[in-house]
Amino acid sequence: MAPPIPVSPLAPAGGFPALPVIGGVRFAAVEANVKYRGRLDVMLAALDKGSVVAGVFTRSKTRAAPVLWCQENLANGVEPGGLAIIVNSGNANAFTGNNGMDSVQKTAGAVAETLHIPPHNVFVASTGVIGEPLPTERITAKMAELRDNLDEGNAKDAAQAIMTTDTYAKGAAAEVTLDGIPVKIAGFAKGSGMIAPDMATMLVFIFTDAKISQDVLQGILSANTETTFNSITVDSDTSTSDSLIVGATGRAGMIPITRADDPRAAVFSKALYSVMLDLAHQVVRDGEGATKFVSITVKGAENDRAAKTVGLAIANSPLVKTAFAGEDPNWGRIVAAIGKAGEEADRDRLSIRFGDILVAENGWVSPDYREEDGAEYMKAQDLSVTVDLGVGEGEATVWTCDLTHQYITINADYRS
Amino acid sequence: MAPPIPVSPLAPAGGFPALPVIGGVRFAAVEANVKYRGRLDVMLAALDKGSVVAGVFTRSKTRAAPVLWCQENLANGVEPGGLAIIVNSGNANAFTGNNGMDSVQKTAGAVAETLHIPPHNVFVASTGVIGEPLPTERITAKMAELRDNLDEGNAKDAAQAIMTTDTYAKGAAAEVTLDGIPVKIAGFAKGSGMIAPDMATMLVFIFTDAKISQDVLQGILSANTETTFNSITVDSDTSTSDSLIVGATGRAGMIPITRADDPRAAVFSKALYSVMLDLAHQVVRDGEGATKFVSITVKGAENDRAAKTVGLAIANSPLVKTAFAGEDPNWGRIVAAIGKAGEEADRDRLSIRFGDILVAENGWVSPDYREEDGAEYMKAQDLSVTVDLGVGEGEATVWTCDLTHQYITINADYRS
Repeated sequence: MAPPIPVSPLAPAGGFPALPVIGGVRFAAVEANVKYRGRLDVMLAALDKGSVVAGVFTRSKTRAAPVLWCQENLANGVEPGGLAIIVNSGNANAFTGNNGMDSVQKTAGAVAETLHIPPHNVFVASTGVIGEPLPTERITAKMAELRDNLDEGNAKDAAQAIMTTDTYAKGAAAEVTLDGIPVKIAGFAKGSGMIAPDMATMLVFIFTDAKISQDVLQGILSANTETTFNSITVDSDTSTSDSLIVGATGRAGMIPITRADDPRAAVFSKALYSVMLDLAHQVVRDGEGATKFVSITVKGAENDRAAKTVGLAIANSPLVKTAFAGEDPNWGRIVAAIGKAGEEADRDRLSIRFGDILVAENGWVSPDYREEDGAEYMKAQDLSVTVDLGVGEGEATVWTCDLTHQYITINADYRS
Repeated sequence: MAPPIPVSPLAPAGGFPALPVIGGVRFAAVEANVKYRGRLDVMLAALDKGSVVAGVFTRSKTRAAPVLWCQENLANGVEPGGLAIIVNSGNANAFTGNNGMDSVQKTAGAVAETLHIPPHNVFVASTGVIGEPLPTERITAKMAELRDNLDEGNAKDAAQAIMTTDTYAKGAAAEVTLDGIPVKIAGFAKGSGMIAPDMATMLVFIFTDAKISQDVLQGILSANTETTFNSITVDSDTSTSDSLIVGATGRAGMIPITRADDPRAAVFSKALYSVMLDLAHQVVRDGEGATKFVSITVKGAENDRAAKTVGLAIANSPLVKTAFAGEDPNWGRIVAAIGKAGEEADRDRLSIRFGDILVAENGWVSPDYREEDGAEYMKAQDLSVTVDLGVGEGEATVWTCDLTHQYITINADYRS
């Protein structure tokens, strides 16, 4: 038996935050022994009648059955009545042939029957080992217990139940006032690498009492995803099961937001963004083997998309990531990563900064740069790199962690 | 002082091969102390009058001055007279501002003067640390010694002089008969990761006595590069300085090949391909920290390009590579890598084989597959993975190595 993986040194100091109650949402978590023993591994979230839901999912071509089910539900539009989200950890129900969708339908059917809601209003997510049949009956056997435990205050238990190799549970919240009405947002996430060892998936569930139409909520969610969860990378591997679902109960007693150009939509979007970014950063901070949290900002690109491409090329470069791990201010590796990204860059107008330290400019090392300053800067736990490509106005920021021996240990030395 | 990196366990058993003499090509290597002490670090190859040359280079947007120089020479066409290639290790002369091209011009000028050839007939390559000015005078001071040492039999010394963190020198040769005339091909390469620690570059130099026009040679070289050097990956990082140069002296006494549709061009191309593939494999076998050599073949793709994209997605996946390192037959990670590649794939028609072992088919694990068989197969040093995407006729093979603790040690623990 391999020793347990220690809690990430980058975990938030305060632990799991005190999440506000979101009117109209209740949570339950149980021990169903899907794979793990002696820990919570199934969670149920129940949303009252009148709730709407939006989601974004992995673009993987080998995505898992639960993802296909959720996408179909969203495309068809949910029926009137309550909503539910059921999630298990320990088994991803991915690449399990026809068994996959059978299992999703049985699970959704059991939840629907228990909560008296339409089956296609039940969203399903699974995370864990790929290619093993999900023991569905262990989940369906727990329906009465889940229903009886549903409570507005159980979000932390729910966040723990969806963990796989995560070293800490991840939560975040925000409150915003829309025309004098307070609106709450609270969510939780799991993820420790785009894929943890044998464990596929980043899962994120966010709840709000805002009264907002499904299409406006979906638009806000999709736009914010690009600059939050789609701007982080631990190891460049995309999961078969990544799912991000936002449910809005409408309990805040406000006039509904039904148009994207409603001024309140922008205020709400900003608050939702802060929760999404916080959770996205927590996923990176729990990246397998991470000892450094690194922000990479690329400016002066041809456009924002090009800036993001270059940022991700830097963030995914094993040589850049091992340099961070070694606290080595190795800007030459950043130059090489910029070069391989394939986007327009002007070698002789390029500049690179570590924090506020100007390292390279005019196609060479800056005359004022001293290697000792770079080496001292690299000792910090949170690092920032800013690159100016010198060709346009495009800008993007991405976040990543370093690549350490512990990543190899987790993924090579621990056998499935 | 870090301990020396041991010779790769994947190094060819026979050591450096006995390369045939190529009529019209002479080599010299010297200790110039560019950065290293007590070892050969500069090599000169001199090609007699009547030789032609072809080359392919890194596509990096931050490519080094020597690469820009060589590309310019090739674009303008070499002048009548002999040719030369001069290479130093220890310093890449990359991202060194205006000093970079100054240094290249001085070096090429010194070689041209020494050998009485036009300066633009001198090809220059540098490999080593990025961002430090190249001490050009240490190279130019050695011109007389280089000239005096030129000899047809010095290819092995030349191969050693261009090594950086390579753990062994890499050579390969082939002989082919064109209309009864024997034609020889011999070459050498350096590279240990697309970028070794602080050391950018894969360099490859191949020589032949074939009589062939420059444009036909370039066409053959470019076509063969796609399925050899452009189909290998150690760590997905592209160097600022990758250079592959082929010189043909025309000494074989054959009627020249001047058209791509000359039947002898295909025969010659096949022989050149075998040398290129051999050297490409040797680079992978010297991949930083490598303990496994892995061939990945993707069939049934929409087209060959799509097959290669999927192959490289698998070969570059840190999770797949750490699974190889751990001798873990983790086919779920291969499914995930296929999914993220973005090319057409049919989850339910996909099949995966480890060697001859059918692992997955019809969207799930194969009913006959036993995990023990997969685990036993993974113990071999040379592994092959075959994926059939089930959507078309496209096919490609790529080669990679595993990702081990030693890669992290080389790149994070050894400080520059």
